[in-house]
Amino acid sequence: MKELNDYKIKIRSNDDVKNLIRRLNVIEGQVRGVKQMIENDRYCGDVLIQISAINKSLQSLGNYILKEHMKTCVVQEIKKNNLEVIDEVFDLMKKLS
Amino acid sequence: MKELNDYKIKIRSNDDVKNLIRRLNVIEGQVRGVKQMIENDRYCGDVLIQISAINKSLQSLGNYILKEHMKTCVVQEIKKNNLEVIDEVFDLMKKLS
Amino acid sequence: MKELNDYKIKIRSNDDVKNLIRRLNVIEGQVRGVKQMIENDRYCGDVLIQISAINKSLQSLGNYILKEHMKTCVVQEIKKNNLEVIDEVFDLMKKLS
Amino acid sequence: MKELNDYKIKIRSNDDVKNLIRRLNVIEGQVRGVKQMIENDRYCGDVLIQISAINKSLQSLGNYILKEHMKTCVVQEIKKNNLEVIDEVFDLMKKLS
Repeated sequence: MKELNDYKIKIRSNDDVKNLIRRLNVIEGQVRGVKQMIENDRYCGDVLIQISAINKSLQSLGNYILKEHMKTCVVQEIKKNNLEVIDEVFDLMKKLS
Repeated sequence: MKELNDYKIKIRSNDDVKNLIRRLNVIEGQVRGVKQMIENDRYCGDVLIQISAINKSLQSLGNYILKEHMKTCVVQEIKKNNLEVIDEVFDLMKKLS
Repeated sequence: MKELNDYKIKIRSNDDVKNLIRRLNVIEGQVRGVKQMIENDRYCGDVLIQISAINKSLQSLGNYILKEHMKTCVVQEIKKNNLEVIDEVFDLMKKLS
Repeated sequence: MKELNDYKIKIRSNDDVKNLIRRLNVIEGQVRGVKQMIENDRYCGDVLIQISAINKSLQSLGNYILKEHMKTCVVQEIKKNNLEVIDEVFDLMKKLS
C-alpha cells in the first residue's frame, strides 16, 4: 500500500518551496486587494482587470509546477515504463488550460 | 473631471457585496490551502488539481461580475449612446477567457 | 412566426461578406494544408503548430463577428429593451473562449 | 543533416492516417458550411455557434494528435534522455490551449 502511493509525495528543495510560497503569498495579496476594491465600490471593469491579473499569476504558477512535474516525476515514471503517467499529465494539462 | 470618471464607481447592494466577499474569502482559503500542500511536500498532480480548482472559482466569479456589469453599466451606457463601452467590455471578456 | 424570428437574419454589406468569405477561404486552405501534412508523414509537432494556427485564424474570425454582432444587433436589442440579448451574447462569448 | 532532422518524420499507420484525414474532411465541411451561412445572411449568433463547433472539432483533433505524440515520440525521446522534448511538448500544449 505504501509503495503504491509512494510517488504521491514530492520532495522539493528549500529554494523551490520558498519560491512557490512567495508566489502564493502574492496571489493571496491580490485576492485581498479585490476584496478591498469591492468594499470601496470600485468599478466592475477595474475589478475584472484585477481578477484577470490573479488568473495570470495562477496560470503562470500552474505552468511552472506542471513543467517541473514533467521534468522530474513524469520523466522518472516514463523511464520506469509507467506510461499511464501520460494520461495523468494530459488531464492535468487540460484542467489548467 | 468628476463627471468624466463618474461611471468608474459601482454602487452594489449590501447582499451583492456580501456575496462577492464570501466568494473571495473562499478563494483566499483555497490559496492558503495550496500553500499548506507545498509545505507538506504534496504531489505536484494534487497541487495542480487544487490550482485548477482556484482557477474555476475565479473564472466563475469573473463571469458573474462581468454579466452583472453587462446587465447594468453596459446597458446604461448603450442607452446613453456611449458605444465605446462595447470595446471596453469586449476587452474585459478577452482578458477573462 | 415570421416576426418572432425576424432578428435571426443579418444583412451584411457586400464588403463585409467578401471579407468574411476571404477569411474562411484562408481557413479552408489551412485545413487542406494539414491534410497534406498528414499524407506526407509530417512530424506531429509541425502538424500541431499548423492546427494551432487554424485555431488562431478561427478565433480571430469569431471575435471579429462577435464584436460586429455586439455593435449592431446587441446594441439594437438593448435599445428596444430586450435584455435577454445579454444572456445570449454572454453564452456566445463563453462558447468562443 | 538527414540524421539531425530524422525525428521530424512521423510514420503513422494506414488506419491512423485515414482517421485523421476523415476528421479533417469533417472540419473542412464545417468551414464550407459557415461560408454558406454567410452567403445566406444568417444571424451572427448562429454563425458563431458554428464557428465554436469547428473550434471544438479542431481542439479535439489537436488533443488526439498531441496525446499520440506524447505516447510515442515523447516517450521515445525521454528514454533516449533527450529531455528538451519536454520544453517542446510544453510549448505545443500552450499553443493548443
